[in-house]
Amino acid sequence: MAGRENRAFTWAFHLAKLIIVEIAETTESVRVRISAARAEGKKIGLIPTMGALHSGHISLIEAAAGQCDYIVVSIFVNPTQFGAGEDFEKYPRRLNTDLEICAANGVDLVFAPSADEMYKSENLTWVTVEKLTEPLCGRFRPGHFRGVTTVCAKLFNIVTCDVAFFGWKDAQQAIVIKRMVEDLKLPLEIVVCPTVREPDGLAVSSRNRYLSGEQREQAASIYKALQKCEQMVRAGVKEAEVVIKEMRDILTASRGIEIQYIDIVDVDTLEGLERVEGRALVAVAVKIGSTRLIDNIFVETVGR
Amino acid sequence: MAGRENRAFTWAFHLAKLIIVEIAETTESVRVRISAARAEGKKIGLIPTMGALHSGHISLIEAAAGQCDYIVVSIFVNPTQFGAGEDFEKYPRRLNTDLEICAANGVDLVFAPSADEMYKSENLTWVTVEKLTEPLCGRFRPGHFRGVTTVCAKLFNIVTCDVAFFGWKDAQQAIVIKRMVEDLKLPLEIVVCPTVREPDGLAVSSRNRYLSGEQREQAASIYKALQKCEQMVRAGVKEAEVVIKEMRDILTASRGIEIQYIDIVDVDTLEGLERVEGRALVAVAVKIGSTRLIDNIFVETVGR
Repeated sequence: MAGRENRAFTWAFHLAKLIIVEIAETTESVRVRISAARAEGKKIGLIPTMGALHSGHISLIEAAAGQCDYIVVSIFVNPTQFGAGEDFEKYPRRLNTDLEICAANGVDLVFAPSADEMYKSENLTWVTVEKLTEPLCGRFRPGHFRGVTTVCAKLFNIVTCDVAFFGWKDAQQAIVIKRMVEDLKLPLEIVVCPTVREPDGLAVSSRNRYLSGEQREQAASIYKALQKCEQMVRAGVKEAEVVIKEMRDILTASRGIEIQYIDIVDVDTLEGLERVEGRALVAVAVKIGSTRLIDNIFVETVGR
Repeated sequence: MAGRENRAFTWAFHLAKLIIVEIAETTESVRVRISAARAEGKKIGLIPTMGALHSGHISLIEAAAGQCDYIVVSIFVNPTQFGAGEDFEKYPRRLNTDLEICAANGVDLVFAPSADEMYKSENLTWVTVEKLTEPLCGRFRPGHFRGVTTVCAKLFNIVTCDVAFFGWKDAQQAIVIKRMVEDLKLPLEIVVCPTVREPDGLAVSSRNRYLSGEQREQAASIYKALQKCEQMVRAGVKEAEVVIKEMRDILTASRGIEIQYIDIVDVDTLEGLERVEGRALVAVAVKIGSTRLIDNIFVETVGR
């Protein structure tokens, strides 16, 4: 009997949440709601997204629910982080589905601004992070991280959140943003959550939906290569070059994959490592057809 | 009798303030105090300074007192806004006198951080404002405004003030910072207060103390040139070139003055004006010996 009551309660609770998710499109409108939440002593959590929400985003919402009282999801396909010839135009936009997902997962407020709200007619101010933005994706996407840090600074300032949640799938992004927050003394905490994977290991990403059935199968080799790396490091292989060669072989076994980089770097400085020692980030970027996918693992070894 | 009581009260009040001005040297320490002030519903005002406080700064403190309940003065000689060969080393530092001035003027908290507190061992993050930082002082002090905007972003984030106060003497700085706050959606208001002048018109500045007696007399011609400009514009002269020539003549009449620029620009875009129409900023930078001084006036004309 208690079980049935619980289920009924859960159902009613979800229904209630479906009804109460609010949408704000302007800074002013967000601030009014945040002021009210703060007045009730609530801790504010923000999950910045570009929409097309998936299980990775949901894991961030769940993490936020665990430590915040008022959860904001921002949905904004940020033009300034896309380069010429990248997928800004075709990036999936499906606000209604996203709103349902937010509602069903207990989000309190969705902030879905226009580009004009975020950048006005002319944006003159940019936030840049040096060094950490140069390697890895920085080599292939000039200006990308400047777009990311600038829009995140704006979002943090609009929402004035206490905590913001990012996924480790975009490890370099998370590291760059953490550094921006530290350097600029932004009054919030950055929480980075584990990468969510499909059953075959592919990291969940909004861009996975670009893949054809065959490409989707090929994409599974990205995580296979990363797992191979982990096995080798656990087995005591230290030479980065040796590990990278093995990973390259796995990836190139799939004809459709074009490797952009396979890099093993120090997780704090993002500087390349010749020997896989200490706290290492093993990061991969590939193109499958016109779809660019990234993934990584963190491996920590203790000196022997 | 009421008058005597009032005076006694005022005196006791000043004495009390002398005792209660607090100093914080770390971000953490500022945040604890700001949290307490906010919990009491106080509106927070910040006056960012490089110390060597003078009547210009006091006018900003007074403006803050008029609209805020908790006044913070930051004192930090910011290394990143000084170029090579500029006066970072010799810039006046006199914290004790500054603290007395703050106490006597009702400041609640002085934030006097170390360079390490503001920049740690390596600062990687910079805030830049394009276009507005290129003309005027931007031409003569490369990197200066990047240092200003970055340190102000940090200070705003540390203090989380509701309002920050700047002087119009540094008009380009005020315009650049206002733009940064707008673009980055920083949750505060910028108030710009009128230039405070010595009896002979010289704009009050910490750098005036570098001047010898003779140089100090020469410096008065800066404001004379600006006043001449105002007279000409009021009299209907429209050609910027004609006005600038007249100003140049006044300045060069003082042998010791080397002109860096005399520019008449649109006050919103800082783009040069050929005709003095609309809302114009007339800005001057000179060197007298090794001392660099700037000043400006705002002139508004209605189309005829």
